[in-house]
Amino acid sequence: MKKLKRSARLVEMTQYLLCRPHVLIPLTTFADQYHSAKSSISEDLAIVKEVFEGEGIGELHTLAGAAGGVRFTPKAPKETSLGFVRSLCEQLQQPERILPGSFLYMSDLLGQPSIVQEIGRTFATAFADQAADVVMTVETKGIPLAYATASFMNLPVVLVRRDAKVTEGSAVSINYVSGFNKRIQTMSLARRALKEDAKVLIIDDFMRVGGTIRGMMDLLQEFKATVTGIGVFVESTEVEERLVDNYISLARMTAVDPKTKRVDVYPGSYFD
Amino acid sequence: MKKLKRSARLVEMTQYLLCRPHVLIPLTTFADQYHSAKSSISEDLAIVKEVFEGEGIGELHTLAGAAGGVRFTPKAPKETSLGFVRSLCEQLQQPERILPGSFLYMSDLLGQPSIVQEIGRTFATAFADQAADVVMTVETKGIPLAYATASFMNLPVVLVRRDAKVTEGSAVSINYVSGFNKRIQTMSLARRALKEDAKVLIIDDFMRVGGTIRGMMDLLQEFKATVTGIGVFVESTEVEERLVDNYISLARMTAVDPKTKRVDVYPGSYFD
Repeated sequence: MKKLKRSARLVEMTQYLLCRPHVLIPLTTFADQYHSAKSSISEDLAIVKEVFEGEGIGELHTLAGAAGGVRFTPKAPKETSLGFVRSLCEQLQQPERILPGSFLYMSDLLGQPSIVQEIGRTFATAFADQAADVVMTVETKGIPLAYATASFMNLPVVLVRRDAKVTEGSAVSINYVSGFNKRIQTMSLARRALKEDAKVLIIDDFMRVGGTIRGMMDLLQEFKATVTGIGVFVESTEVEERLVDNYISLARMTAVDPKTKRVDVYPGSYFD
Repeated sequence: MKKLKRSARLVEMTQYLLCRPHVLIPLTTFADQYHSAKSSISEDLAIVKEVFEGEGIGELHTLAGAAGGVRFTPKAPKETSLGFVRSLCEQLQQPERILPGSFLYMSDLLGQPSIVQEIGRTFATAFADQAADVVMTVETKGIPLAYATASFMNLPVVLVRRDAKVTEGSAVSINYVSGFNKRIQTMSLARRALKEDAKVLIIDDFMRVGGTIRGMMDLLQEFKATVTGIGVFVESTEVEERLVDNYISLARMTAVDPKTKRVDVYPGSYFD
């Protein structure tokens, strides 16, 4: 049994809490671990709380009583997220990112774990109160964003595949129409991936008409699941009608001007 | 300009360091930020170091001199990783995970961000001294593992696609033979994804014969890149010859016994 000084306890508790977002930790856990009185632990937590909330790391809620404890909820202040998204938008506007078909190359940015983490933290903040059971995405480029979001929310990730895979066992498949080029495509989800009546937060990297997300919503009906929120990193504004309402986007891009090769990218609906 | 007490400084520095693995942070950064003397910051860091190293969180190295500073290297003690992998192996052995074709359902485990994080921390520890420039994987199931590893190593992730995608721009494609069922498959990597002479750490979720990883190695030759390490989460021991040497596995699974539907999963080569 170790007995730590306050200074060492603070370092350890900070690390412990940061690794366990949305988990209710009984004060006795800390008291036992550090061989300290609960009153000392409470004082420690007050210090941690002040720094976490002052620095925009997140909220620390203490619940009194026998079933009580402390819970860390990561939250990014909207101002911080806006500054972060603005700097991403600037990078996304670089003309050399424009690809044939008006796509925007963003794999380099989405390959940076620190950017992916911050996007996840922003989504986790936006959907903190939706009480989702799982985060869902469809392969491929939404995967890191879904994991980052889920890790800040302490939720599992469920992955929709473009085809039923042998490594997933029996699966439910649906056909859907991708909204932009009107192609019929398939997506599937392993039967055992989702419990009935699950509450699902959908995360994806990009949305134009919303056909893929609409497909995920249709697929979820087969599982009697409910969608509690939809978050997309970038939405394109070049469509007139969307197949999806009630989503949050972090950034918006206009249609690419084929003559000037110019694209405007600016903060999305989360910041409206 | 804020002036914090030591207790508050410790909370903030802990959080700051945990978010910036492998980054050299000049002491003046902290001294300026907290309006404190460098000697106080050094004392703070000594406390953080003691806790980080005592608790198996990682190492804190202080470099003296004008170009000096402090660097946090996440490291999981091998004993901790072994205990973690043993508990995963137990879960992977559950008979209901066995799928037709002797595949093992593991999407539920790889859908847990906390498990994915710990796998990433283990790989990051194993390859901490390899000086890789990027972490590479091929879609789909290796993606979260690659990101988790990369985030602990402060490296970008490069994603190999099964097909050239319109959203990636010009790409280099190769054909390769998947080792197990001898099918010819394609993989591709965007030209701009990788600089020449890059040093690459390959991470994947599963390896049988190693055809996919061999394919990635062949693809990397087209980019004049060097492979500095290969990490797979689970390797199957049911093959006689592999197309890949010098890899690290975290777990090994035997062939599935078709009569008893039994599979043995035990710690991999990292723990040999």
